[in-house]
Amino acid sequence: MDAKKKTDTLRRLKSVEGHIRGVEKMIEDDAYCIDVIGQIQAIQAALNKVKANILDNHLHDCVITAVRGEDPKERERVLSEIAEVFETATKV
Amino acid sequence: MDAKKKTDTLRRLKSVEGHIRGVEKMIEDDAYCIDVIGQIQAIQAALNKVKANILDNHLHDCVITAVRGEDPKERERVLSEIAEVFETATKV
Amino acid sequence: MDAKKKTDTLRRLKSVEGHIRGVEKMIEDDAYCIDVIGQIQAIQAALNKVKANILDNHLHDCVITAVRGEDPKERERVLSEIAEVFETATKV
Amino acid sequence: MDAKKKTDTLRRLKSVEGHIRGVEKMIEDDAYCIDVIGQIQAIQAALNKVKANILDNHLHDCVITAVRGEDPKERERVLSEIAEVFETATKV
Repeated sequence: MDAKKKTDTLRRLKSVEGHIRGVEKMIEDDAYCIDVIGQIQAIQAALNKVKANILDNHLHDCVITAVRGEDPKERERVLSEIAEVFETATKV
Repeated sequence: MDAKKKTDTLRRLKSVEGHIRGVEKMIEDDAYCIDVIGQIQAIQAALNKVKANILDNHLHDCVITAVRGEDPKERERVLSEIAEVFETATKV
Repeated sequence: MDAKKKTDTLRRLKSVEGHIRGVEKMIEDDAYCIDVIGQIQAIQAALNKVKANILDNHLHDCVITAVRGEDPKERERVLSEIAEVFETATKV
Repeated sequence: MDAKKKTDTLRRLKSVEGHIRGVEKMIEDDAYCIDVIGQIQAIQAALNKVKANILDNHLHDCVITAVRGEDPKERERVLSEIAEVFETATKV
């Protein structure tokens, strides 16, 4: 990952960390359950954005290298990994 | 998609179609709501499997062709599409 | 479910059925994989809407009856079912 | 939320927080993208468990109170909230 993307990803993760601490505070303060669930869903959406950015980076970096490379096993491995990540991500 | 994968995908979709008709019958017969929801979740899981198979085929076919090809714009387009599909699939 | 909601739910399911047949046709015609995946995601979104409507009906009908009733076991059963459906629906 | 559930929920959230810091470390150390995505999916699964626990608590507490209470507007509000949370949680 290049320096700029790395900084951006870390910034997003730090923000998620702060958001989690906010939810802990809500629990300590007996906030309304539905509001807490709403905040957790916002955190999960933020994590989806982080995942999508990491995958995008992976596709433009490792995947291009492997697919253009001359090792069919490595190519197969990298492509199957993507399919697996996709299947896990979409479990009902 | 090769003939075997095509047949398999069509067979799965036909089965989903029958499953949907089964849910319609449940609604007509006033089946218990939670049981109906359970069947719909089974259908969504079956559709996830179909999506994963289609993506796997796509990765091993169009994506390899585009990434190994000499057109950087086409390569970019194909990879960005995968990232987009992934992001849509994982919306909270 | 009252007659109006039943008709609406059946109409939505019929539309999903037609949509599935459309996807079968796309597979037979070798449509572009990413377009097929997009259509399947639209079908899954339509099924989510059906599930949400059925749950809404369930909450306003069986759940109210059970929770206002005098059988604590039945109340417990109905509420636990909701929690379970929610957990299944949100698996990553 | 009773003291025991509160402690359990806070413990889970603290664990998620530590897990996020682990992912930040992976990014700093240029860990393999697919491994990072796997860890983020594990965090999202842990958050789903937290959400399910909070909802379960909510159903057995506020929802019972509202549904057994004599204010039809409050009952309606509480039940519609559950339906909404469910719909948000299951977006494709």
